[in-house]
Amino acid sequence: MTGKVSPLAPAGFPEMPEVKGVALATANSGVRYTGRDDLLVVELAAGSRVAGTFTRSSTAAAPVVWCKEVLPAGRARVLVVNAGNANAFTGVHGRAAVEQTVEGAVAHFGCARDEVYVASTGVIGEPLDAAKITSTLSTMSPCAGAEGWVAAANAIRTTDTFAKGASRTVEIDGVQVSVAGIAKGSGMIAPNMATMLGFVFTDADIDAALAQNILSRVVDRSFNAITVDSDTSTNDTVLLFATGAAGARVDTDGGDAARAFEAALEAVCSDLAQQIVRDGEGATKFITVRVTGARDDVSAKTIALAIANSPLVKTAIAGEDANWGRVVMAVGKSGEPIDESRLRIEIGGVLVAENGAVHPDYREEDFVAGYMKGDEIDIAVDVAVGDGEATVWTCDLTHGYIEINADYRS
Amino acid sequence: MTGKVSPLAPAGFPEMPEVKGVALATANSGVRYTGRDDLLVVELAAGSRVAGTFTRSSTAAAPVVWCKEVLPAGRARVLVVNAGNANAFTGVHGRAAVEQTVEGAVAHFGCARDEVYVASTGVIGEPLDAAKITSTLSTMSPCAGAEGWVAAANAIRTTDTFAKGASRTVEIDGVQVSVAGIAKGSGMIAPNMATMLGFVFTDADIDAALAQNILSRVVDRSFNAITVDSDTSTNDTVLLFATGAAGARVDTDGGDAARAFEAALEAVCSDLAQQIVRDGEGATKFITVRVTGARDDVSAKTIALAIANSPLVKTAIAGEDANWGRVVMAVGKSGEPIDESRLRIEIGGVLVAENGAVHPDYREEDFVAGYMKGDEIDIAVDVAVGDGEATVWTCDLTHGYIEINADYRS
Repeated sequence: MTGKVSPLAPAGFPEMPEVKGVALATANSGVRYTGRDDLLVVELAAGSRVAGTFTRSSTAAAPVVWCKEVLPAGRARVLVVNAGNANAFTGVHGRAAVEQTVEGAVAHFGCARDEVYVASTGVIGEPLDAAKITSTLSTMSPCAGAEGWVAAANAIRTTDTFAKGASRTVEIDGVQVSVAGIAKGSGMIAPNMATMLGFVFTDADIDAALAQNILSRVVDRSFNAITVDSDTSTNDTVLLFATGAAGARVDTDGGDAARAFEAALEAVCSDLAQQIVRDGEGATKFITVRVTGARDDVSAKTIALAIANSPLVKTAIAGEDANWGRVVMAVGKSGEPIDESRLRIEIGGVLVAENGAVHPDYREEDFVAGYMKGDEIDIAVDVAVGDGEATVWTCDLTHGYIEINADYRS
Repeated sequence: MTGKVSPLAPAGFPEMPEVKGVALATANSGVRYTGRDDLLVVELAAGSRVAGTFTRSSTAAAPVVWCKEVLPAGRARVLVVNAGNANAFTGVHGRAAVEQTVEGAVAHFGCARDEVYVASTGVIGEPLDAAKITSTLSTMSPCAGAEGWVAAANAIRTTDTFAKGASRTVEIDGVQVSVAGIAKGSGMIAPNMATMLGFVFTDADIDAALAQNILSRVVDRSFNAITVDSDTSTNDTVLLFATGAAGARVDTDGGDAARAFEAALEAVCSDLAQQIVRDGEGATKFITVRVTGARDDVSAKTIALAIANSPLVKTAIAGEDANWGRVVMAVGKSGEPIDESRLRIEIGGVLVAENGAVHPDYREEDFVAGYMKGDEIDIAVDVAVGDGEATVWTCDLTHGYIEINADYRS
């Protein structure tokens, strides 16, 4: 919250709908920040269901451990999120801080322990003073309505330069259903996790198991298809809460209602995930990497991420240099099967290389002057061995990233 | 060769011995650079043996493909190295350029085709004009002696800010044997490869197969234990040439002679590998990461590299911030087995964290003021599940890296 907003930020926070059965409140807890809210509390209607995906880190934070423990029950009434302290690598004290937060929510909202979800983001390794959270929480009165989203999205920010929200509405069985989400994340963003924090709410009526199936698929194509710096957080969490309050039932995986719901959820999650990339620390270019012709989709994603995580590719794009040789390098280092003699690279739709060498008509001088100066860069690579394909999103690597991360704590 | 030398560079190029049977020459070929030599030719005595390790990239450059093809014969008379053009991703033209270079060497030196080794470093994807190399090569007369090493090390530089050489002498069966090497590399440096270019020469008498066994082990502990930016080059090559001219025989793997030779070779290769890290693009800190207590040595190396490749760890160190929380993050993202409740972290020998939380006596304020301002940073992590251990070397990630790589070509 330095006041300097990412040049790739959307024009403003989007219009968001009310999600029936969802009430929001934010406050300043005093844990770390002054002059801004850093605590979000979401109250959910009785009977709400929940699905989640979490970091695969072996040093997962205490709140992640808690959420994974209670998730099998599949029910939720309260979500508590604090920003500024990750409550990660805090040992037994960290676990006690989560328990204390949960007890505070139980006391204030009168729900069961396993209906309380907790998420934290911020500095790793500093003890979290849960008393500040519970004493603040006990004064908060969540409100329904469409107005609370921007405050909620702001309250969970750390190094984010803008608040991230996205929503879709979809008709299911003649009933209007809302899907609305918020997210935070800017650095320590890497694939194979559930991004920093993402919370999606719907008033559809859907069982926890089905919600989990759909969420897992969608996260794989959205939050798990982005990378800023290849570093995976200890706290990554995506939770989907379904209140059922709209009265539209989503019941059979693959059925019309489920497909409509999954499409809306994917639209929201992809939108949020791409906003995280657009707020990538120091980002000045939004980069889409599309790989086709791989052995399978998993191989395509591995190759796409090798390109998207390459510091040399990312710095070249920062320098507005169409250095496709570095793309070749990244494809090669992925270790995945390719046919170099038929490898094909397009940048911004311009055929740069094919059949294992630069295209004879490609004139970099002309090209660089135009396309590479834009802030949306598309890289498409066909590796010519199969039908696998994947798309991932990333940003460039700039002085801004160094500035932000060489003195985030100090 | 911008004139700005890495702050981590050694005081100067080391004294190097003559290696009997090795003669060196350098020249400017006109391929890319002006005002400096960019072509190295090494002539080796008749009967010289060779071992090699190469990039594992699936887009390996044409000269790498050539070397791998002729290596099984195990004999060498000529090494030709050019800087400025990598001859990578150059298709059939690239292969033809290698063949033309080899034919030029055969004509000039009167050796067999499979006795010629070729290596290239520089820009990827640009056609290499081999005629410039062969016409220059035909005028070159390599000289024996100890004087040629610094010129040789300079001729193979690209973004390197200093020439890299190292040597050891070792007595084998009462005979003094020399092991001398040069290397180049600064960016696109990552593990699981044989670094950018490293050439080591000895006058010991050793068969190619045994030389290969020893070299492979040594490279794993030296060139494959460094990383600058996690990007693997298309051209990484380490070659070991043994002329046999000293008359000392190394014949049985594990025997006294072989062990003495392996120790000398490891000393040279580790020295060269660490010099590459000290010349890491933009580097201001030399970082040693030591991991112990892992399930096995492979697991330890995976964890060490997760730390060494983490942009967040590297930027924290650039900012002189002892941000050990990011070390925890990197350990976690490695996916390797650890016991978080017994995890122990030391920085510069100071116990920072143990038993899954910050150490109560650790006072970051005091510590940062001193140790982190130095240019040699040691990180030691014990993950408390076994006996596996590994050490890797890397550098910090700074504005200098961005500057160098955002406009290397333009």
